[in-house]
Parts: sequence; structure tokens; C-alpha cells
Amino acid sequence: MRGIWERKMSYWYGVEPRGWESHVHQSLEEDLGSGDVTAPLFLSNQRSKWYVEIQASGVICGLAIADYLVRAHPESEVDASPFTDGDRVDPGDLVLAGCSPTAHLLAVERTVLNYLMTLSGTATLTSRYVTATSGYPCRITETRKTIPGLRRLQKYAVRAGGGFNHRMGLYDAAMIKDNHIKAVGSIASAVETLRSQSSHMMRIEVECESRPQVEEAVAAGADIVLLDNMEFELMAEIVAEFGDRVMLEASGGVNLDTVGKIAQTGVHVISVGALTHSVTGLSMHLEIG
Amino acid sequence: MRGIWERKMSYWYGVEPRGWESHVHQSLEEDLGSGDVTAPLFLSNQRSKWYVEIQASGVICGLAIADYLVRAHPESEVDASPFTDGDRVDPGDLVLAGCSPTAHLLAVERTVLNYLMTLSGTATLTSRYVTATSGYPCRITETRKTIPGLRRLQKYAVRAGGGFNHRMGLYDAAMIKDNHIKAVGSIASAVETLRSQSSHMMRIEVECESRPQVEEAVAAGADIVLLDNMEFELMAEIVAEFGDRVMLEASGGVNLDTVGKIAQTGVHVISVGALTHSVTGLSMHLEIG
Amino acid sequence: MRGIWERKMSYWYGVEPRGWESHVHQSLEEDLGSGDVTAPLFLSNQRSKWYVEIQASGVICGLAIADYLVRAHPESEVDASPFTDGDRVDPGDLVLAGCSPTAHLLAVERTVLNYLMTLSGTATLTSRYVTATSGYPCRITETRKTIPGLRRLQKYAVRAGGGFNHRMGLYDAAMIKDNHIKAVGSIASAVETLRSQSSHMMRIEVECESRPQVEEAVAAGADIVLLDNMEFELMAEIVAEFGDRVMLEASGGVNLDTVGKIAQTGVHVISVGALTHSVTGLSMHLEIG
Amino acid sequence: MRGIWERKMSYWYGVEPRGWESHVHQSLEEDLGSGDVTAPLFLSNQRSKWYVEIQASGVICGLAIADYLVRAHPESEVDASPFTDGDRVDPGDLVLAGCSPTAHLLAVERTVLNYLMTLSGTATLTSRYVTATSGYPCRITETRKTIPGLRRLQKYAVRAGGGFNHRMGLYDAAMIKDNHIKAVGSIASAVETLRSQSSHMMRIEVECESRPQVEEAVAAGADIVLLDNMEFELMAEIVAEFGDRVMLEASGGVNLDTVGKIAQTGVHVISVGALTHSVTGLSMHLEIG
Amino acid sequence: MRGIWERKMSYWYGVEPRGWESHVHQSLEEDLGSGDVTAPLFLSNQRSKWYVEIQASGVICGLAIADYLVRAHPESEVDASPFTDGDRVDPGDLVLAGCSPTAHLLAVERTVLNYLMTLSGTATLTSRYVTATSGYPCRITETRKTIPGLRRLQKYAVRAGGGFNHRMGLYDAAMIKDNHIKAVGSIASAVETLRSQSSHMMRIEVECESRPQVEEAVAAGADIVLLDNMEFELMAEIVAEFGDRVMLEASGGVNLDTVGKIAQTGVHVISVGALTHSVTGLSMHLEIG
Amino acid sequence: MRGIWERKMSYWYGVEPRGWESHVHQSLEEDLGSGDVTAPLFLSNQRSKWYVEIQASGVICGLAIADYLVRAHPESEVDASPFTDGDRVDPGDLVLAGCSPTAHLLAVERTVLNYLMTLSGTATLTSRYVTATSGYPCRITETRKTIPGLRRLQKYAVRAGGGFNHRMGLYDAAMIKDNHIKAVGSIASAVETLRSQSSHMMRIEVECESRPQVEEAVAAGADIVLLDNMEFELMAEIVAEFGDRVMLEASGGVNLDTVGKIAQTGVHVISVGALTHSVTGLSMHLEIG
Repeated sequence: MRGIWERKMSYWYGVEPRGWESHVHQSLEEDLGSGDVTAPLFLSNQRSKWYVEIQASGVICGLAIADYLVRAHPESEVDASPFTDGDRVDPGDLVLAGCSPTAHLLAVERTVLNYLMTLSGTATLTSRYVTATSGYPCRITETRKTIPGLRRLQKYAVRAGGGFNHRMGLYDAAMIKDNHIKAVGSIASAVETLRSQSSHMMRIEVECESRPQVEEAVAAGADIVLLDNMEFELMAEIVAEFGDRVMLEASGGVNLDTVGKIAQTGVHVISVGALTHSVTGLSMHLEIG
Repeated sequence: MRGIWERKMSYWYGVEPRGWESHVHQSLEEDLGSGDVTAPLFLSNQRSKWYVEIQASGVICGLAIADYLVRAHPESEVDASPFTDGDRVDPGDLVLAGCSPTAHLLAVERTVLNYLMTLSGTATLTSRYVTATSGYPCRITETRKTIPGLRRLQKYAVRAGGGFNHRMGLYDAAMIKDNHIKAVGSIASAVETLRSQSSHMMRIEVECESRPQVEEAVAAGADIVLLDNMEFELMAEIVAEFGDRVMLEASGGVNLDTVGKIAQTGVHVISVGALTHSVTGLSMHLEIG
Repeated sequence: MRGIWERKMSYWYGVEPRGWESHVHQSLEEDLGSGDVTAPLFLSNQRSKWYVEIQASGVICGLAIADYLVRAHPESEVDASPFTDGDRVDPGDLVLAGCSPTAHLLAVERTVLNYLMTLSGTATLTSRYVTATSGYPCRITETRKTIPGLRRLQKYAVRAGGGFNHRMGLYDAAMIKDNHIKAVGSIASAVETLRSQSSHMMRIEVECESRPQVEEAVAAGADIVLLDNMEFELMAEIVAEFGDRVMLEASGGVNLDTVGKIAQTGVHVISVGALTHSVTGLSMHLEIG
Repeated sequence: MRGIWERKMSYWYGVEPRGWESHVHQSLEEDLGSGDVTAPLFLSNQRSKWYVEIQASGVICGLAIADYLVRAHPESEVDASPFTDGDRVDPGDLVLAGCSPTAHLLAVERTVLNYLMTLSGTATLTSRYVTATSGYPCRITETRKTIPGLRRLQKYAVRAGGGFNHRMGLYDAAMIKDNHIKAVGSIASAVETLRSQSSHMMRIEVECESRPQVEEAVAAGADIVLLDNMEFELMAEIVAEFGDRVMLEASGGVNLDTVGKIAQTGVHVISVGALTHSVTGLSMHLEIG
Repeated sequence: MRGIWERKMSYWYGVEPRGWESHVHQSLEEDLGSGDVTAPLFLSNQRSKWYVEIQASGVICGLAIADYLVRAHPESEVDASPFTDGDRVDPGDLVLAGCSPTAHLLAVERTVLNYLMTLSGTATLTSRYVTATSGYPCRITETRKTIPGLRRLQKYAVRAGGGFNHRMGLYDAAMIKDNHIKAVGSIASAVETLRSQSSHMMRIEVECESRPQVEEAVAAGADIVLLDNMEFELMAEIVAEFGDRVMLEASGGVNLDTVGKIAQTGVHVISVGALTHSVTGLSMHLEIG
Repeated sequence: MRGIWERKMSYWYGVEPRGWESHVHQSLEEDLGSGDVTAPLFLSNQRSKWYVEIQASGVICGLAIADYLVRAHPESEVDASPFTDGDRVDPGDLVLAGCSPTAHLLAVERTVLNYLMTLSGTATLTSRYVTATSGYPCRITETRKTIPGLRRLQKYAVRAGGGFNHRMGLYDAAMIKDNHIKAVGSIASAVETLRSQSSHMMRIEVECESRPQVEEAVAAGADIVLLDNMEFELMAEIVAEFGDRVMLEASGGVNLDTVGKIAQTGVHVISVGALTHSVTGLSMHLEIG
């Protein structure tokens, strides 16, 4: 599995480290502000051995950030982790360990854990949806319903959990949604306008709430059709009729109880808002000793 | 209740707008990047009436951010909201409405909703803990386990939900935790060192896992003692013996089932990690028409 | 024509103003640094009437930036311009005029002109390529060969000149180029890998230098095929055979002498590096009086 | 020649690297945005040998930027270049070569080339003007007509091409131009006001359009007189009469056909707007293998 | 003394380096702007030995900043200093020395000295107040009257001089001052409101101008009482009556003549505005050779 | 005098507001951090009348900054001040007054006063040097010995106090100092190298410690000669011999006792390090009521 995951990493290669470091500096600033007022407890040459221990089962994500934060002090040592982002972890697993100046370690401890808990939480939830649809050829993706400021990292965590990414934002693919259709008047004219104005490199997806809308979207030449909150049977019918002519994505009302049945309809993509609009941190702690 | 809330708002006055706006600009950048590729659908003078409708019961939070985003276009109009941050909302409530250039509205729609959903989720969860402890004089506070980058806004949402804030970070109050004690050797020497080195304006809290530790912390002159993961009976005993000499805070293993019993022990503060390390977005949507 | 242009503007709506203002502030800083040392010539209440006069024929672009710079002083007045970005201009046309505090006007004069000259230069050159291919259904687009730091504004100027945009960067569409193919080994495996890893919202273009490569790319399911530096005849043959199954883009060796003949081959898109890797400023000046 | 060039480099020492790096990061962001979507093609340990090959004759400039971009990945190796900024290059010259992780190389390739093409274009054009005036003691300089955002780098390229720099902006030397004179009333009062108000470290140049204006400027004590768009004969007369009392600069209507004749008049400085208001990129490409 | 000082350093550990570097870059930008115009004097491989020599007696502060600036060039060497921030220095002491590229050294020289002179000036003045109160158990602290932009560094220098820090700003501790009392009406209601609204981690100090105000503040439960501009006798009386129940701080009218007598009254803290609202640079210079 | 001062203001026009606002925001951040913890004392609609009262005689400077800070709240009102930067003020003068939301006023109070005290201190000290040399035609200027981060504002304050500015930094004029001469070998070669390499717009000053050095500098064509720490008689001799051929600046050992005698020697410029390397804040306070 590591080979596949290295490919995933490279998807982010080049740009992610930049945004990622700046996000980390801002989060550290939130916690450290004008300085850690308990740090005077420690002489500058005092060091401690430490480890991060998992307290619940899930998928780990964010190790590079944790490593970066602890290594920020030039005399801080971090052991090579036996885990990689995307790996399954269980209680008692030590995902990171090392030996660091104590004052530094305790200055970054909370920020390290906040990233690991948050991103592993998203990776873990994603992996549940992926497992619940295993055997079906559909992809699980997140939506644009993300925690403000955390989108790129959440999308990375979705991939660590075995999911795929939807568009990054309003800028890298076009989706004609209900509010667009209301404002423009018809799916046909919306697709036609976009085709004639936007880059030839841009895919166009149309959100549909009924079978006639799907027909209109397919006729207009949509690249992808989103089936919004439809009944299983209707989705299955649409897949049967249009599934080899257009990519079909299901969204709305997706949860761990329904996702398997949705996958069964044969849709190509299932997008899940809960993957990123909510977060349940994966429990873990950092211990000295 | 509005009067109290206005006081809460003033707590943030002066600085919050700054950090808040910069956070909002970064979140908008996540979504808009190099530009909204569906915007060519709309002529620049096309306008739409719109409203944000609540789809689940909870406490609303983040209205000023939503208002700011929609008003970013000079020709965008937002009606005065009948709601204020901290107000209870139910399905069907329209928390914000107005009339705006359509292209602008749809460019900020998702960012508006992401803030409102995230912050209202935290306010809503906080209000459940506050309700579960009503009748007891203790405060509900969050911890430093926050979503990276979102700490100030989450702390604001905790207050909107009726909670109080713990320290903002490592810089505005001292807490001697288990890792500090391990590294320094004893509670007594840790408190003494901090008292002699840190600002006379700084309070010192000590995290204790046992009654002897509490005794040592009180004797050393701690301002606040945190009772970490203790049994209800032990907490009650400690409150009875030390509760009028030192402030007592309970933490660890706090959930909606246990928080009432913890409050019953008489502790002054209960801090709840889940308020901010996890997020369940409050459902709502923006509709044109 | 104004109606069409308003659509173009909306393509950039929402995000462009932000990047644009920050670019303008940096350019102003280049010129003003620690302050204009000739400004002491003018008392603070001295005002001047002024106008920007075109000195060569072309297409104007950048008026909003010019307007923004002059209006930066609250007492500076700018008349509504009779021109819009994308309009044709000739020597003697006054594209902007107003009455401003003299010290402010002369502080921003050069930056105003540098933007107008640069962007109008790109719009003007684009319009020549568009004119040279009029009557053919193909689009003229720029490439990623842009002046460092100026990409978004240059892409805007290309649209003002009647062109269309290619992808914005490496992030919003995939192109498999010669160096990718060399590194990966074959077009087929490159397309297959991208399809299985990248977002379902992403189009894939393949750069081909020969007919067999085109065949391989089409068979692999490329959305767009780039015909790199091919002979007219070969392009025409490829269009005849594949033009209704895949979008075809011509690039390489495109100039004002060849672009008409390339359009004649029936390709759907012609991308022109010179539109943005080189700049010939459109002559104009700002006069007081 | 290398010795002279090292001096030129030192002119920029200390500050240029800072501004330069920040400019490069912004340009990289333009291209990479939320990440290179073709990068999943490459495993993270795949490496490629590469070189940058010149495709037209000119003067190379920007090698340090190219080197910086490629070396941004810690496992990327760049060979010592046989060329230095300011060196003449011809088709087939390999100005930079190395061995780098393929995904990184292709992520920075376009930005590397965009800088090298743009700056080498300016250096090359400058060298043509320098060659066209060889044998005369006058300097070739650029003006403040620069591509927005690129001024410092363009001024560096002018020096790489053998030219000299005019003032950097409005802040490091005073020039009284036509619009100043119109607004103030007379050259004499403008010079007098500036002398009495501005720093004693500041030189003052006066733009003159006629012989009487030159006389007035010299009488007022201008340090430098700019002869704006004058006939060759008039310039020669003015040089004969004032050339040993004041520095004389010619500007306006300078091109490769006229610059030799202008130099012949004996002026000390010839400033050329086209050096920096227009750009013709020098052709080159990056090849793997 | 070094042991104590290492503890002081750790107070700033973790966050200070970040703010500190950004402050240094801004200060360097002030001096270098678009580049050092005398640098062409030096070939890029020319190096010089140098040292910073003290010209007046005092306490040194800012060595890490000086070291950072000189080491900014990778080929610059700095010897380990025999001095540490907080050490006493006398004329002729060489606090820093090394061997650096000459162009780099002279580019940073002034910024190096400006930091050392400014911060050592503050440390030196603080040490005079500390000496003048030696033998008394009170602390010397600065106030919020600081040079704009320099607060964190000045507070660091106060500690280097043997002083202690008051609150960092309005955010890390509450002080109810005369203007607050005027606006709210009474000390009692001000303290009560703050206690019920602000974090349980926050100390509250009340500024009092009379004995009745002190009584009111103590009764209201203030943690610290500031005795503003009081007579020595009154302060001594208040210490005798309230000194074991509340922390007492003297402020106002403190100078080197009065500070000893104030210490004699038994107050716990003396805060001195002049430590940071004024600066007398400690004389020193950098010499080559 | 107001007329002259308006000219001075315009010297800074255009650029200063930008740098100035960013400096103010950083200084406010120092004080406000995560928020004013005493603000909950005030309801959001509570307002107070207030004024800033001078407590010592001097020259006021920084009013625009104070005005900007108080006006940052949209409901804050500031009366037109009867004073302008550069005006003389005495105890009891009310330099600024208005009516503002109390919470906002007290949030910005300290930052307002810190700027006014610091800048007025510099303006006041400058005015003493100007007064001490009244009747002589020489200028008083500051040096590059400035408080880190405050250079532009201190240079503005020097002008408000009636002084003139020296160069802003290393970038806008060349000065060959003792360390340059040591490193290069001779004044003559240093001047020659700079003349041949640096912009024709750049003045060159040479720091001399003896009469032979002055002779060498004048012969080499220096624009300005700095007489460093010379005896009065020697300076007078040098003025007599070279004063009409070159500008002469005295520096070193300048204080209020010596500056008059130095002016008497006839030098054109006297630069005073103490104007900006040290600060004595001008006393003032802000009162409610």
C-alpha cells in the first residue's frame, strides 16, 4: 500500500509544503503568542525523551507537520516513524518519538497534537466510508463544506483515508448548482454559456434534483451530473440509462448507513459533506519519559 | 439576555475584528483562488434576493462574519438580522437575508455557510453542556485542544454558547501539567520557580491526578488546581476540604452524561476538550428567491 | 460588444480585485519607497486637472487599476471613462481624466501608466491574433509562458483582447508534456495514471509531436490533444480524423504570419506563447492641464 | 569581464536576495496554486537529469533565480554553471544542468524559464544599445517605465546587459518633469524649493524641452539636465555649451537606429524607455535526458 | 549569575525568536531598501575581520540579534562571545567579533549597532533601578509605556537588566485604571464585573490614588493594588495594613532618586515608566581590522 | 509657520501613510494581542468624552497617527485639533479631544500616547538643536543611528522639530566611511569606483578625520565631506578653504553645549546621532471627562 500512498503524496508535491508551513506558523502563534510563561521551569540544556501514543483506532494523518514542529528546534531529534500518513493505527501505537529540549517540546506539544488529532479524525472518517463501499468501483470524495482555513489539509486527509478529491474550490472546475439554475433560468443555457466563455480545460458538472433535469444536463453536454438527494431506485435508473455517457455523482443524505446502498446504484462518485464540515478528533497524547 | 451578550462581545472588542478579517480573507482565498469559473453565467448587473435558513436546532454564531462577507461587494444589501450571536435558532429560522449581485453572492456563499455552520456547531454543543449543569455555580470552559487556526473564533463561539474561556494559550496564564511535573521533579519546586520568575500578574494552575498532589499544589500556593480524570467522590471530598481556599477545575472524561455529576461535586470550573477539538456543523443553507 | 465584455469581466469577479490590489500596492512601493522627494514642490491643497492620452492604436486594458490608483487619495476625482477594458483606442483618445491633488497625482502617475501600457500592450497583441483568425471557429489562448508575477493580469488582458484563457497554472488542469512522457515512458500509462489518481473534475491534455502520438493519446482517452509544432497538412489530417472525437489545440511556431493558416486547418484552439512571454507597451502619457 | 561583473553584483548585495526571493515565491504560487495535478505521475524517488538550452543569441540573466528554484528541493542537484549573469550566450549553450526529483523539476520548470527568458530578454536588448554606442563615453540607462512588479529585477538585467541604472524610483533622486513645471510655474522656483526642502544628499535633475529651459535649469543649479526629445544638432550645441558644467542626459525617441547619433552629440547619459517598458523573451527550453 | 540568566532566556523561548526575526528583517529593510549603493566598492570575495567595541559602562543586551544579522551571509563567521545578554560591560570590551564578507558586514553594521545600543540602553537603565533597590525584596518592572513596535524586545531587555515584567499588554492580565473607574462608577462594581465575565485564569489589579480606594479595592477582592503617585508615608501605612493580604505595586513619580525610598516602604513591586518610554543608547562601535 | 510645515508634510506624501498604518497596526497588536480583557466592563453603547493633555513643554508630533487610531472605530468622533505636527505645546494644552465608545478608546489609549510621546520627544529635542543654532545657515539633521523599526517616523519627527533629513538609508545616497576606506585602501579609489559604478543620480559623501583626508576627498570629487569629530578650529579652517567648493557636514561629539560653536565654524550641515538613537518621551496623558 505504501507505493500507492507515495503517489498520493506527490499529488500535493511542490505547493503543499508552502501553504502548510504558513498554516502551522499561524497555529503556533495562536498558542504561543508573546511566549510560553511556564518555560522558565526548564534550563535551556534540559532534554526529555517523548513519544506520541494513539488512544483510539483510526487512520493517522499529519505526521510531516508533527515532525516539522518538533524539529523546529535545531537540537531536537525525531526518530523515523514506523507509520506513514494513511496507515491504520490502534491504541498503544507510538506514531512519533524522539528526544528534544524540554522547553521546546512543551511549547509545541499542543499544536502537534491538535494537527494530528484533527487530520487523523478526517482520515479515519473517510476510511469508514471507503470501507463501507469496498467492492464497488465508486470513489468517495469530500465537498467544499470544509472548516474555514483548513480546506487543503482536510482534502489531504481525505486522500490519506483512501478517498479522492472533488474540485479544490470555485476556481478549478465549474459546477452549476440549484442557485445558479434559478438565477440563469435553465440548465441548457447555463451549460451553453459556460462552454462558450470558460477555458477549454474546464470540466462542467450540473447538480440535478430530478430525472428531467438529468436529461437536460446530459443533452446540454455536461461532463458530470450530480444526483442531489435522490432515491436509490431513481439513481439506479439514471445510472442504467446515462451511466456510460456521462459521469454520475451522488450527494446529499449520505451517511455510513446509506453510503453502501448508494454505491450499489452504480454511481461513479459519492461526495460526503460530513467528511469535512464536521471533525471528530482522533484521541492521542504526548508523553515524556 | 441580549444585555449579557453585549458584554460578551465587548470582551473581544478591538482586536477580534482584525484577526477575524484576516482569517476570513484566507478562507475566501481557499475557495476562490484564481477566480470563480461559473461567474460568467451572470451579467454584472444581475441581482438576487437570498436568505440563510436554519435546518437544525441550535445556537447561532458567526453572523458578523457572514454579514461582512456578503457586504464585501459595495452594492450588496443585507437586512438587519433578527438574531444575535448566542441566540437559539430552530429549523426554518431565517438568520440572514438580503439582496446582492448574484455573481458576488454565489462567490461567497460557501464561505459564509462554512463559518456559520462551524461556529454555530461549537456554540450549540457548548449550550448543551451549560444546560446540563444549570443550577450549579460552575463554569463550562473549553481547553487548548482546538482546530488549528480556529482557536480565537472557537473561543468566541464557546462564549456565544454560554460558556466561559480558559486561558487563550501558553502566554496568558501558567498551567503546570503532568509533563512539566515529570520534567521538573515536584509540584512544589515547579510552583516556586514560576512564582519567582514569572510576572506578578500571572495566575498559576496545577494539574493533579491524586489527592496528595492536590495537597502539595495547595500548599505550594497554586491559584487554581485542576482535578484530572478523578472519581466523583474524590472530587467532592477535595471540594469540601479545599474549595474555599483555592479554585478547583475538573477536566478529563467530561461528556454530556457525566458533566452534571461533576458539577454536583461543587467544582468551580469544568473544562471540556470536546467543545473545540471536535466540530459538528449546524445544518443550514443559503437559498435564492 | 459591451454586453459580451461584461460577461468576460464577471469571469474574474470576486477574486481578481483582491490579487489585483495587492499587486498594485507592491508596484507602487517599487516607485515610492520611502517617499516622493519631489512632492515638497506642491502645497497640500494644490490640485490639477489631468488626462491620460493614447499615442498609438490598440486595445485599452487596465482602466480599473488606473482608476483605483488615482482615487487612492480621498480628494481625487476621476471622471467616468468613455472606454471600457477591451475597447479599441486610437491616438488622441482620452481614456481617463479627472482633477486631483497634484502631489498625489504625480506620485501615482508612473505606476498608472506602467499598468495601462503593459496590459494594453497584451490586449492589443491578442486582438491582432484574433483578427487574423476571424471567420474561423478556433479560439486564441495564451500559454503559461508569462512575465513572472503578472500572470493573472496578463490572462485578463488576453480576454480583453478577445482571446480565451488556457489553464491558469499547474493546478487547474492536467497537461502531459514531452518531459512527462520521457519520464513516465508512454502516453498511455501517463493518461491512465492521471485518470485513476486525479480529481474526476480534471481535464487531461496530451502534448503530441507526431500522428502516432495523437493516436495513442486519443486511444488513451485524452480530453484534449495538443499538436506541437506540426506542419499545416498534418494538422489538417488529424483534424479530419479526430476532430469530432477530441478537442485539438495547435501550439508552437505560431505568429501573425502563420496563425491564419493554422486556423484554416480546423483546430479548435491555438495557443500563442508570444502573447504573454513578451510585452510591447502601448504608448500613452498623462498630461496636466 | 567577470571581474567587472562581480562589482555589478555587489551593487545589489544585501537587499536584492530578499526582495528577489519573495518575488520568486509569488511567481511560483501563480503557477502551482493548490498543487501540480500532473505530479501523481511520478513516484517520490524518481529522478531526472535535465538541462536548460539556449535557443537564440543574447545575454543570459537570472541564473541565481533559476538555481534557487531548482535547489528548493533538498535532494535536487545543480551543476556549477559555466555562465554568469551578463555573459553572451548562443543557441545550443547549456546554461544550467543538474539532476533532480522529477516531480519537483517539472513543478518549477515553467517558473525557472519565465524568469530566465524575461530577464535575459532585457539584458540582451540592453547589450544591443550598449554595442550601438560603443566608443562613446555615454552611459545607457533604463527609465521608470517598467513592467509593474518587476522593476528591481529589470534594473538588475539592465546592468547585466552592460547598462547603468537611473534612479530606482521617486524616492532616491529628484527629477523635475514637464508636469511638475506646469504645476509649479517655473524651473527656477522648482529647483529652489527642492534645494531648500530636500535632503542635502539628493541630486536634482530637470527635464527640458528647449534651449531656454536648459539655460534656466543650469542657472538654477540643476545637477543633471534631461534633454527631452531634442534634435541631434540642438543636443550637440547644448553639450558644447553646458557639457562641462552639468551632466546631460538624452531621452525620448531613442531606438537602435537613433542611439548612435545621440551618443555622437556627446551627452553623458542616454535613457531608453523601451529597455524596460517592453520585453522580448529570450528563447530557451528545459529538457530532460 | 549565568544560571539565573538561562532561566530568564527560557521565559522567551519558543515564540520570541519568531517575532524577533521579523522585527529584524523590517529594520534591515529600513536601512537597505533597494540596496546598498556603496557596496560596489568591494569585490564579492573580499573579507574583513571586525569587532564590536563598547564605549560606555552598562549591561549588554541583544547579542543574539547581532549574531543573527552578521551570520545572515553564509560565509560570515562570528566568534563565540565571552558575554551573554545581561552581563555588565565596560569601555574597551569586545562583545562580538568575527570575519565576514566586507560588503555584507557593512550592509548590516548599522542595524546591528542600532539593536545593541537600544536594548543595552534599556538593560543598563533597568540595572540602575535594580541596584538602587538592592536589599529590598521588591521587584522592578516596566510599564506599557513602550516605544511603538519595540515592546517585546524592551521587555526582554528589562529582564536582562535584572528587572521583571509587568503584563505584556491588555490581553494577559486585567488592570482597572482611573479612566475605567470614572467610566464604570466604582471600583467595587468594576472588580465584580470583571470577576464574573473574564477568564478564571486572569489576575485583576486596581489602580488607586487614595487610601479609601485601596480599602475598596481590597474589599472587592483585587489581586494586586497599584498605589499611584502616593507619598512614602501613605504607602508605608498601606503596606503595614494590607501588605500580607494583597500584592502592592507602586508607580508614578519613580526615578533613581526616589526608587530607594519607595522600596523602603515595603511594596512588592515598583513599576517604572521611564525604563521603556525613553531610551538612552549605550555607546559602542563596530571596527574593521 | 504653518505654510512651511505643509510643505514638510508633503515631503512624506503618498508613501508615508502606507508604512505608517502598517507600523501602527503592529504596535496595536503588541498591546491588544488576543483582546482587551478589561473591555467587558463597558456596554457596547457606552461613550466617553476625552482629551489628550500635554504635561511638559515641547513640540508635538504624531497627531495624524493618534487621530487614525481613535477614528478606527466608525462611531468615534475626534475634534479638529488646534495644533499641527511641529507646533510648540506647553503643559495644559489639549492637543486632541473627542467623544468615543469607551471600550474602543481605552483599547487604543496607550498606543496613541506611546506614539505621541515618542515622536514628540524627538521633535522636541530636534527643536532644541535648531534653536541653539539659530542665526547660522547650517541645517540640523539626524543620522542612521535610529531606534530599530522607527526610522521613517523618527525622520518625520526630526522635520517636525525644524530639522532636515540626512539620507534615509544605505540605498538613497552613498557615504564612504572609515570602515570603507580601511577596506578599500584610499579615499581616491573609493570615490572613483563609486562614480564609475553607481547611478549618475547618486551623491557621494566622504567621512574624513583629518585635513589631508579632506583634501583627498575634495580632489577626488566628493559631493559632500563629513568632518568627523574635528576641533572647532580645524573645522573653521576647512570651511574657509573648501566651503565654497564642496558641502561640509560636521558630525561626532555634537551636543547642546557644542552645537552652537560648531555652527559658528560655518559648516553647512550638522548631523546629530542623539536625535534618534535616544528618546525622551514628552509627558502627556489621556483623560476621560
